[in-house]
Amino acid sequence: MHHIKEIITMLQGTNADAVLLQSEVQLIYALGETAFEGKCLLFHDKTAAFFTDGRYIERAEALLIPKGFTVSVRPADMTETAYLTQRLDAHQATTVLFEDDYLTVRQYGHLKEALPQINWLPMGERLTQLRKRKSAEEIACVEKAQRIAEKALSDLLPALHTGITEKEAAAKLDYLMTVYGSEQPSFQTILLFGERASMPHGVPSERRLQPGDVILMDFGAVYHGYHSDMTRTFAYGLASDAFCRAYDAVLRAQSVAIAQAKAGLPCKNMHEAAANTLAEAGLGQYFTHALGHSVGLEIHESPAASPRCEQALENGIIMTVEPGVYLPGRFGIRIEDMIVIDGDTPRNLTNFPKQLQILAENTPS
Amino acid sequence: MHHIKEIITMLQGTNADAVLLQSEVQLIYALGETAFEGKCLLFHDKTAAFFTDGRYIERAEALLIPKGFTVSVRPADMTETAYLTQRLDAHQATTVLFEDDYLTVRQYGHLKEALPQINWLPMGERLTQLRKRKSAEEIACVEKAQRIAEKALSDLLPALHTGITEKEAAAKLDYLMTVYGSEQPSFQTILLFGERASMPHGVPSERRLQPGDVILMDFGAVYHGYHSDMTRTFAYGLASDAFCRAYDAVLRAQSVAIAQAKAGLPCKNMHEAAANTLAEAGLGQYFTHALGHSVGLEIHESPAASPRCEQALENGIIMTVEPGVYLPGRFGIRIEDMIVIDGDTPRNLTNFPKQLQILAENTPS
Repeated sequence: MHHIKEIITMLQGTNADAVLLQSEVQLIYALGETAFEGKCLLFHDKTAAFFTDGRYIERAEALLIPKGFTVSVRPADMTETAYLTQRLDAHQATTVLFEDDYLTVRQYGHLKEALPQINWLPMGERLTQLRKRKSAEEIACVEKAQRIAEKALSDLLPALHTGITEKEAAAKLDYLMTVYGSEQPSFQTILLFGERASMPHGVPSERRLQPGDVILMDFGAVYHGYHSDMTRTFAYGLASDAFCRAYDAVLRAQSVAIAQAKAGLPCKNMHEAAANTLAEAGLGQYFTHALGHSVGLEIHESPAASPRCEQALENGIIMTVEPGVYLPGRFGIRIEDMIVIDGDTPRNLTNFPKQLQILAENTPS
Repeated sequence: MHHIKEIITMLQGTNADAVLLQSEVQLIYALGETAFEGKCLLFHDKTAAFFTDGRYIERAEALLIPKGFTVSVRPADMTETAYLTQRLDAHQATTVLFEDDYLTVRQYGHLKEALPQINWLPMGERLTQLRKRKSAEEIACVEKAQRIAEKALSDLLPALHTGITEKEAAAKLDYLMTVYGSEQPSFQTILLFGERASMPHGVPSERRLQPGDVILMDFGAVYHGYHSDMTRTFAYGLASDAFCRAYDAVLRAQSVAIAQAKAGLPCKNMHEAAANTLAEAGLGQYFTHALGHSVGLEIHESPAASPRCEQALENGIIMTVEPGVYLPGRFGIRIEDMIVIDGDTPRNLTNFPKQLQILAENTPS
């Protein structure tokens, strides 16, 4: 699961002598392990220097030495700056790539002040481009996260009852995901009842579930650092005709969007297909966000299935497909699956059924 | 709960014409509301410009107009850059304070590129200094968060049983805090059994609870954006003599540290008092971290009760007091309260008992 070779290859394509990784996301991507902390400096000649404590040295050596790396770890009595200077000097490194989308202006200022002789080069999109196409192992992690989320949802549904608050239901869903192995919620769980479901990014409140409500849940689990993302919308007790018609239209919009998910086609085609279908159903004005986004070590990655994204789909991209309609004061509907681009026929990572389901009323005894 | 006046006064003490706020923490601090999104530009003449959508305009006006502010909101058809330029031009502003500890290098690069005529001035410690001394209302929020955390802990204790995993117990604690009104866990809950309690920042694992284990829990709730922080250590089933002696020493260390928590004394005195007490008990080498840190809208604020902190304690600072000893392969003990500096006698915000408690063994039926 490590991608140290890809990062060294990327480095060799630049005029930099080394790359400094320090965000949790990039450390997981580089090393394939979730629990490394600190910073890691990688050089062309396959030397890796860790700015961390001794706890990691055994694992770093076990991981990297078989791959031909030389591993060093900052001695406990040496400051980070002194060690960084020593390592860069030892490699006569003068130009270093850094994570410009992670370091704050203040942190970068300290770095430049401590090592004024170094030419610091922003990483730009180099690593996010590498991370775009997921390997089979990475996809398996996202799939595992998705299985956890689905198992939690299956357990939650019979526990929903008249009078439960959005907050209680969301807390229960998060609890179940953790118990089933999620490292954390993929993002703050969106769980909304009735008219509140018309807020695309609503936050769970004290609103209580009543018969006739819509229930919208958008949530995900994290496994080995990889995120899942799904949305399902249910009716509770009964469903209005307007809701059922809109639900069908959203489901059709998702289906036509997935039909456009072919390697080589521009991302925006997926969005346009869904938008056209909803417009034909007279719901175009209620579809107010982009159709989807890539998912991986971060919940929102690039490219997106948005109307402005001209990038071509590529094999191994994991994309959410989440059309929705939001009728203010009435209800909201969103149906979201994750798919992997794979030639002309994407693979759907989401197993949970998505045909309209009217949950039976449940009154706690 | 807003601090807009304090921020304008701070601005007037600089040569900047405006201040740009955009981190969630600073927006809560400025506006006293947790749900504003986007950016906010404040000028000397009490004009506030919001870069957000129309949803917030009513609340922004209700909040600020009574305080003599003029409020404007970015029109939906204007880009952020165009609106920022327009607002700064309208005030003939040339120098703007920005959050250098929040903006990434890349975000700052975009800002400078979009508005090259502006002299961007780093905020530095100006806002964190303002936030150091908490008002009565802010302290009440931390206290409310602490009550939530304590209520959750009281419910969790009887639910602990032989065989429960650290992960399950932590998930249950987080669930209870949410149900009792916490907006999110204050930080990733640390909940460790037995020899694993010797890791000061251990992450809950599949380790199962057994009679004779130590149980260490370090966790907190969030209320209105304000964090709480507490640690308690229990014995399960039985307690060794070595554990009981070390527990007493840690409790004494906390008590002598609190006795040094007087306005005007340097922060480091608190740490030194605790360290000396543990050294006298022969446990000095096992106390491996700083005694405490300030708490507020962030879980770690400045100043800290660390051996290097020469800053003087001031009334209204909320400080954790968390001495601990960590005996590798055996056990760990940490006891943590939050106190508010108040002249010579700090107020303890933590009500939960801290005398050694040996929990009865509990076998699930």
